[in-house]
Amino acid sequence: MRILLTGSAGFVGSHLVERFLGEGHEVVGVDNYLSGQRRNTELFLRHPRFRFVEADVSAGLPVEGTFDAVLHFASPASPPHYQQHPVETLLVGAQGTQHALELARRDGATFMLASTSEVYGDPLVHPQPEDYWGHVNPAGLRSCYDEAKRYAEALTMAYHRHHGVDTRIIRIFNTYGPRMRADDGRVVTNFVNQALRGEPLTVYGEGLQTRSFQYVDDLVEGIIRLLGVSYHGPVNLGNPDEYTILDFAEIIRDLIDPRLGIVYEPMPADDPRQRRPDITLARELLGWEPRVPLREGLERTVASFREVGEGRPERVGVDA
Amino acid sequence: MRILLTGSAGFVGSHLVERFLGEGHEVVGVDNYLSGQRRNTELFLRHPRFRFVEADVSAGLPVEGTFDAVLHFASPASPPHYQQHPVETLLVGAQGTQHALELARRDGATFMLASTSEVYGDPLVHPQPEDYWGHVNPAGLRSCYDEAKRYAEALTMAYHRHHGVDTRIIRIFNTYGPRMRADDGRVVTNFVNQALRGEPLTVYGEGLQTRSFQYVDDLVEGIIRLLGVSYHGPVNLGNPDEYTILDFAEIIRDLIDPRLGIVYEPMPADDPRQRRPDITLARELLGWEPRVPLREGLERTVASFREVGEGRPERVGVDA
Repeated sequence: MRILLTGSAGFVGSHLVERFLGEGHEVVGVDNYLSGQRRNTELFLRHPRFRFVEADVSAGLPVEGTFDAVLHFASPASPPHYQQHPVETLLVGAQGTQHALELARRDGATFMLASTSEVYGDPLVHPQPEDYWGHVNPAGLRSCYDEAKRYAEALTMAYHRHHGVDTRIIRIFNTYGPRMRADDGRVVTNFVNQALRGEPLTVYGEGLQTRSFQYVDDLVEGIIRLLGVSYHGPVNLGNPDEYTILDFAEIIRDLIDPRLGIVYEPMPADDPRQRRPDITLARELLGWEPRVPLREGLERTVASFREVGEGRPERVGVDA
Repeated sequence: MRILLTGSAGFVGSHLVERFLGEGHEVVGVDNYLSGQRRNTELFLRHPRFRFVEADVSAGLPVEGTFDAVLHFASPASPPHYQQHPVETLLVGAQGTQHALELARRDGATFMLASTSEVYGDPLVHPQPEDYWGHVNPAGLRSCYDEAKRYAEALTMAYHRHHGVDTRIIRIFNTYGPRMRADDGRVVTNFVNQALRGEPLTVYGEGLQTRSFQYVDDLVEGIIRLLGVSYHGPVNLGNPDEYTILDFAEIIRDLIDPRLGIVYEPMPADDPRQRRPDITLARELLGWEPRVPLREGLERTVASFREVGEGRPERVGVDA
């Protein structure tokens, strides 16, 4: 297969490139490095079946040849990044998605949209199945990301229903692993950064609030399986196992330096929204479920953060 | 003021042109006649302060000079129209809104987005205040319109917060009046069309389900007032008075031909969603509330439908 992947220099994108190349496919990656990292491109630059085009998919896709699959993964995805770039985040969800859909339509290619659990917003239903419509404030501060992805889903369904494009939609829940950005701003990277710097780990409140995180290899496996079936509605891909924030802190501390302390600070007013996937559909449709245990995933993540430099991975790109 | 109005050949757009010209402003109208009507342009073509540009705002705004206000009203708005043109509806909400916002940003103009009560979807709260987040299925059949408008609101707020554009957002509830399209597909036009053809009026179920409709002049007055205040969040403009479907049928029947019958048919499965505006904000902010009584508004509407031809107003444009 010849595959076009937008967001190839992103965290998830880079793992998809690795997997597709490993399976013998040809990959054309596109990224503008708004939140992607140049070293994720450099990993594959010498591979004979990888080509890279630096471009903003919102402006168009200056790529040559035809494709069997078009995967649209380009977008800032962590709150600090999309709140820094709200307009760009909205445009890559609309114009970016449309350019990718048009390419898939032209080539008769399979299209996949990387959507997100953020389409559920501040959910009133736990866990969230795909037919939960979500709870999002269209005019709110986070709406640049949430509404961009909801729009991208609507556009994808319209191209499927109206233009017959063979589409897939995944809703990605919290994911962690090697090559996350060190300034991702979420709990796993925050703890790893602190521990690698030899600082105590900061827990807000009593640390008993729970989160669920999937290891990136599990997500990639789900993506590969979904590409192989003919199903066009949204599919949740995430790990429903919940751990307390304190669990994360203790595992990461123990992996890096068991002598480090844990300090407790008051809960901030804007504590991140909590979501947990209902993965019944992915189980039934794909025979898929997360396999990598939390401790093992965190070991691999910590190892990769150590490689790039003690708590300060090399940061390159536009906002370096 | 020099005003740019997209969707100038639409139902609401044409009433705005009339009002702005009446107040001494200069108006540049833009429409591609996807659902607008050529005769709404012809009404003003000889006016010295009106200019018209036939263009698709999703592709760009080929207009000259600078503007004091940019009003983005272009979009299919009735269910039969947006379901016939789902992709175009999504694009005019994203690319169209962005082109209009960029023009307002360039000129330091006031921008107004015509949003809709459909951002509330199938509401779980009645009536709907502006801070209700809505209940919309992003992958559903109606999402092409609902999500396009939610996205347009998010983009408008991002341009306001991030680029300092002086924005306004109105959420328009069901509106009726002269120059509605005869194939609008909603209850008022359906009844008027049937009665003018001398047919009995078709009521679904027992006709006791309620609807609220505002007369277009009330909406236009709310728009003018909102342009005059500095408020950037969404503002509901609609009439909260509820009437049963049978009320509408009887008033329209009596206005056109009291001898006509009313026939009852089973309620269809996809009976339109019901919404009722909470207009507390518009009352407090603008001193505005609907003034035109239903019977009077319907009289004027019926008179205009009679003028253009018995139940078959001249239909021009791409899908004539």
